[in-house]
Amino acid sequence: MSTDTWISAEDRGLQYGDGLFETITCVAGRPRWLALHLQRLRDGCQRLQLRIDDFDALAEEITAMAADHDRCIIKLILTRGLARRRGYRPAGDETPTRILTRYDWPVSSPAASEQQGFRVAISSVRLGMNPLLAGLKHLNRLEQVLAQSAMRDAPLEEVLMLSSAGQVIGGSMSNVFFADDMGLFTPALHQCGVAGIMRELVCAAAARAGIPVQVRGVEVGELPRLREAFVTNVRWGVQPIAQLEGRALDARSHARELRRLIDAAQP
Amino acid sequence: MSTDTWISAEDRGLQYGDGLFETITCVAGRPRWLALHLQRLRDGCQRLQLRIDDFDALAEEITAMAADHDRCIIKLILTRGLARRRGYRPAGDETPTRILTRYDWPVSSPAASEQQGFRVAISSVRLGMNPLLAGLKHLNRLEQVLAQSAMRDAPLEEVLMLSSAGQVIGGSMSNVFFADDMGLFTPALHQCGVAGIMRELVCAAAARAGIPVQVRGVEVGELPRLREAFVTNVRWGVQPIAQLEGRALDARSHARELRRLIDAAQP
Repeated sequence: MSTDTWISAEDRGLQYGDGLFETITCVAGRPRWLALHLQRLRDGCQRLQLRIDDFDALAEEITAMAADHDRCIIKLILTRGLARRRGYRPAGDETPTRILTRYDWPVSSPAASEQQGFRVAISSVRLGMNPLLAGLKHLNRLEQVLAQSAMRDAPLEEVLMLSSAGQVIGGSMSNVFFADDMGLFTPALHQCGVAGIMRELVCAAAARAGIPVQVRGVEVGELPRLREAFVTNVRWGVQPIAQLEGRALDARSHARELRRLIDAAQP
Repeated sequence: MSTDTWISAEDRGLQYGDGLFETITCVAGRPRWLALHLQRLRDGCQRLQLRIDDFDALAEEITAMAADHDRCIIKLILTRGLARRRGYRPAGDETPTRILTRYDWPVSSPAASEQQGFRVAISSVRLGMNPLLAGLKHLNRLEQVLAQSAMRDAPLEEVLMLSSAGQVIGGSMSNVFFADDMGLFTPALHQCGVAGIMRELVCAAAARAGIPVQVRGVEVGELPRLREAFVTNVRWGVQPIAQLEGRALDARSHARELRRLIDAAQP
């Protein structure tokens, strides 16, 4: 851990998880897809009514932090700010707290598996459904913590999480796409899940390549029929699933093509 | 706000809401129901696998903080601690962070309404369901923040929140009890909600007084038939609902008796 930033224990980010975050990958001294990250943050601020308007200054600061670093990760946390009174209800005029931290690019797992594709199982930890929070990268992440804790030393790189209603939503730290004869499909995120930047990039790249992508409810019962699946996030990019619940998936063609398209379009 | 405590921005309490809290009321220099608060905290630590064992030292510290104060509130936050690596998965050997803050007893609302009973409506913000988190007073509280935000300046002291499946769970910062001809009933909290200390005290007092209390699923459709309801938390105690969704509730007998019993048994 590389920061020595301190925040007040009265910050609503700590007290209630009242805030948002972004994890920005930086390569060759430049943050990748920064505009998309900031757009999602802006949407999140609107939905949670966080009052922040200096997005340009924020972009400059992130860009400056990335300079002179071959590969790094910048995590941005934005909370509603210091509690102005006790209790859940915001006063409405809080000044948001902004925390920027630069991390080394992780060298650890799952690098070894990136060539072979990921081993993925279905988590027993499910996601509570709340349309008001769905899609947001907010600071209430206990469900993901529990899902990752439950993986322990299992030979898995990721787990898929279902909603409390039993639909497939995505990975604990990624989005998921599936392929069938009709093209690609990925879970709708109206009830839970995080609307990932790489998910957006995959949808855009697929559209350019003429590959149809359906965004829809996905049932667990569909999984055994599928021949290709991949998970996505900005660090992993497009990562094929080689094993899903122990069953081998050998198709890779969509993942390969999308990865190529996204790499080619890289800012 | 009265504290100058600072925590690392790397604390998992901030990063993921990975922790628990207790709000302890103190009267005449003594914390009330401290053993129950610590028991709930201990249960929460077991369920989230937070490693803390010095509950006796914690009890002493809270007791010392309350001394010499006629009325105050002590908030305890316990997080999993400093992140030992990036990502949701705990390393497993984190040292929990413990934050104790003393606040003045609030003089503001809803003191004025405590004599007349509370005005309560049903919130449009629903609670995601997750049996692994249900009952815990954990730090993922965005749903309560949204519910309280949505109340804005409405003439209400509390809102009732439903689960995503539409069952009544409790207030945004309280538990709820209802009365019918059979006795009392209160929502089961297997899927969401916080298992409040005052809820526990009410159930115990009712048992001593021979009043049956059913803990069960409660449907919204049952509410229009009821004549008595009350919300509970350690600060409000047993607080009659005078208006539920605009409909007057005039029965108070159970609330009055339970309040008397709990006051009489006060530690």
